[in-house]
Amino acid sequence: MSTIPAAAPIDRAACLAWDAADPLAPFRERFTLPEGVIYLDGNSLGALPASTAAHVQRVITQEWGQGLIRSWNDAGWFMKPQTLGDRIAPLIGAAPGEVVIGDSTSSSLFQTAVAGMRLRPGRRVVVSERGSFPTDLYVLESVQEMLSGAEPIERRLIHDDGPTLDDVLDEDVAIVVLTHVDYRTGRLYDMTEVTRQVQAAGAIMIWDLCHSAGALPVDLNGVGADLAVGCTYKYINGGPGSPSFIWVAERHQAEARPAVTGWQGHARPFDFEVEYAPTPGVGRFRVGTPPLLSYAALEASLEIWEEVDLARLREKSLALTDLFIALVDERLADWGIEVVTPREHEARGSQVALRGGDGYAVMQAIIARGVIGDFRAPDLMRFGFAPLYVTFADVWDAVEVLRDVLEREEWRKPEYSRRGAVT
Amino acid sequence: MSTIPAAAPIDRAACLAWDAADPLAPFRERFTLPEGVIYLDGNSLGALPASTAAHVQRVITQEWGQGLIRSWNDAGWFMKPQTLGDRIAPLIGAAPGEVVIGDSTSSSLFQTAVAGMRLRPGRRVVVSERGSFPTDLYVLESVQEMLSGAEPIERRLIHDDGPTLDDVLDEDVAIVVLTHVDYRTGRLYDMTEVTRQVQAAGAIMIWDLCHSAGALPVDLNGVGADLAVGCTYKYINGGPGSPSFIWVAERHQAEARPAVTGWQGHARPFDFEVEYAPTPGVGRFRVGTPPLLSYAALEASLEIWEEVDLARLREKSLALTDLFIALVDERLADWGIEVVTPREHEARGSQVALRGGDGYAVMQAIIARGVIGDFRAPDLMRFGFAPLYVTFADVWDAVEVLRDVLEREEWRKPEYSRRGAVT
Repeated sequence: MSTIPAAAPIDRAACLAWDAADPLAPFRERFTLPEGVIYLDGNSLGALPASTAAHVQRVITQEWGQGLIRSWNDAGWFMKPQTLGDRIAPLIGAAPGEVVIGDSTSSSLFQTAVAGMRLRPGRRVVVSERGSFPTDLYVLESVQEMLSGAEPIERRLIHDDGPTLDDVLDEDVAIVVLTHVDYRTGRLYDMTEVTRQVQAAGAIMIWDLCHSAGALPVDLNGVGADLAVGCTYKYINGGPGSPSFIWVAERHQAEARPAVTGWQGHARPFDFEVEYAPTPGVGRFRVGTPPLLSYAALEASLEIWEEVDLARLREKSLALTDLFIALVDERLADWGIEVVTPREHEARGSQVALRGGDGYAVMQAIIARGVIGDFRAPDLMRFGFAPLYVTFADVWDAVEVLRDVLEREEWRKPEYSRRGAVT
Repeated sequence: MSTIPAAAPIDRAACLAWDAADPLAPFRERFTLPEGVIYLDGNSLGALPASTAAHVQRVITQEWGQGLIRSWNDAGWFMKPQTLGDRIAPLIGAAPGEVVIGDSTSSSLFQTAVAGMRLRPGRRVVVSERGSFPTDLYVLESVQEMLSGAEPIERRLIHDDGPTLDDVLDEDVAIVVLTHVDYRTGRLYDMTEVTRQVQAAGAIMIWDLCHSAGALPVDLNGVGADLAVGCTYKYINGGPGSPSFIWVAERHQAEARPAVTGWQGHARPFDFEVEYAPTPGVGRFRVGTPPLLSYAALEASLEIWEEVDLARLREKSLALTDLFIALVDERLADWGIEVVTPREHEARGSQVALRGGDGYAVMQAIIARGVIGDFRAPDLMRFGFAPLYVTFADVWDAVEVLRDVLEREEWRKPEYSRRGAVT
């Protein structure tokens, strides 16, 4: 199923046949999706698992309402950042005790980037990519500003048009922060090769897994990476603003020192000592009291993930994106719509970006027709394919709506023109 | 009602009469409390508002489940940190546009402390208090470690036994971080006088309002403070780990530069620019995507606060703590139990700490009897009196349970002895 036969005539019946043969198809029933919507934005905010509302309700009424302060012990609240971290671990090739849930991804990247800098004292360069999701760059600006003393911290940005990683790596580089799957184009890095290259230069490799965790198998320990962060509200379906995670390779844990040292990362938090002393292990990356109602929604979504075979997930993801690319090539070429995302499987995440026409207006027009993707400035229409709830028929129908909107020039309606909308 | 007449014979009937005359009594129905529990730990985790579960349910099923990504615009998600901040403002004497919701209090203090240091370039000393809730001290250690360049940042801690604020303030002090109400003793600072003293030395005054917001009226603009942080899961009843808030006086907003610059604090977050540019106003203290389900619970609790008269809240708070102190003096003196909290109204928050006997075991024994306070190492039994849901009869009954546990020596049971419990 992993490749759509290029020669075959693709029609909706073929898509329905693929759905009927899809071993992941039953997972769709585990999500609550609105009637009349084809949801291709799970790479921005994942869909609602059917079990989440009841689970959060129970945490609110029982653990908070009835248990009150006692739930810190009785409901295991205090250790949630680590017990939930252990449940994220299989999704990213991490071992138990290597993952901790944090606040936002930006906060966690700050914790992690500073820790990476401290693992390479004396080195004064941070490397990232011009096309990174901007918060990664902004957070690195914070790191630069805060750690620059007599000798400033330098930032070097790689780019598709150069400089390359090879150009910027040298003995001054402390950390390299790269996003495994590009948030706009869906381009997937070769994690093994990049990690090897960065570590060969003596630098610390920090992976941002926002667009890969839950989208495809990740094997952090397999590639021997150093540090990683990721988000749980996209493919992992933890809910709006659900917390990030931090991974610290076991070999770095004793030495790693995060930026912000809060009481929940203390070795003896309830002894209320005046001086900070980090707890052993990844728990030291904790800061303050965690947002437990947001954790509760994440907990519900992780129950689904325990049943998912990640190899099958990847197989379906590639089949969905292969299908979408084939249909765009076949049916949208007349309107100058081109696929930006790499066509090679090994260089593609679980999303596809298109360019051409007035992308902003086209996206608004298809959203009005119930096909939800998103637009990313300056010119990309972005579609995410979450294999747990997107069907092959969804892909067919989405392209048909796109084609129809282009053919009828529906996107020209004034209500779809750009006027400073938030997303 | 604000002072319990010392001469009057206090009995349960008198307490019931005070409850009957209490103008805030109807608020108790707005909370769901467990049967058989007297909850005197709202200073650690506030009780569950009756409306919260349904409100969060609606956000999950409608805003997330049905609205999906569209809710960032349609449900006002993107601006929640600021719209909810504006609803916190009246509780702390802040103006609209001066408050933003953050992650944990520790994270927000880090944001704020660094901003404070940057408002006083060249000054290299941070001042706090040895008895602060430890995370404040640990966060200041982070600030010291990160900002120490060629010239280290020095930390000076005041203490009840000295040194005093007067001893440590000089022209090197950049920021002073103090907790308005002491988390253990309930001692309340004179915010006006302390702010004046700190500012007279040219330093920035940062107030930690964790134990005062929602416990008593706070008037940040009235006293002309500089920066503040606080928590919403105690007296404000936002739920376990509900987010902190940050206050930045309007006069500092243009110049203030927080520690971590994330995309949600950018002037044009959806233009995905490579360089960080802070948004005007307090919004620049935002970091990453906020935990919106935790925000939803906070939103429900803030609806109650819009109806609360803070002067009456303070009046009842003092009457409750006066009553508790009077009853402890009268009924527990035989067992050597003494009140640690100041008896003067102007020096007392909304909590009372007791010392004497085996406080840890006594606390466990009364919790087993349904009277929930908490123990704070090394030797304090701590009781919080949230005026919205604690009654005068509760106070009477709690002291009676304490008396009975002491009289029968119930606290000697082996199951109540300390054995490394979390709280």
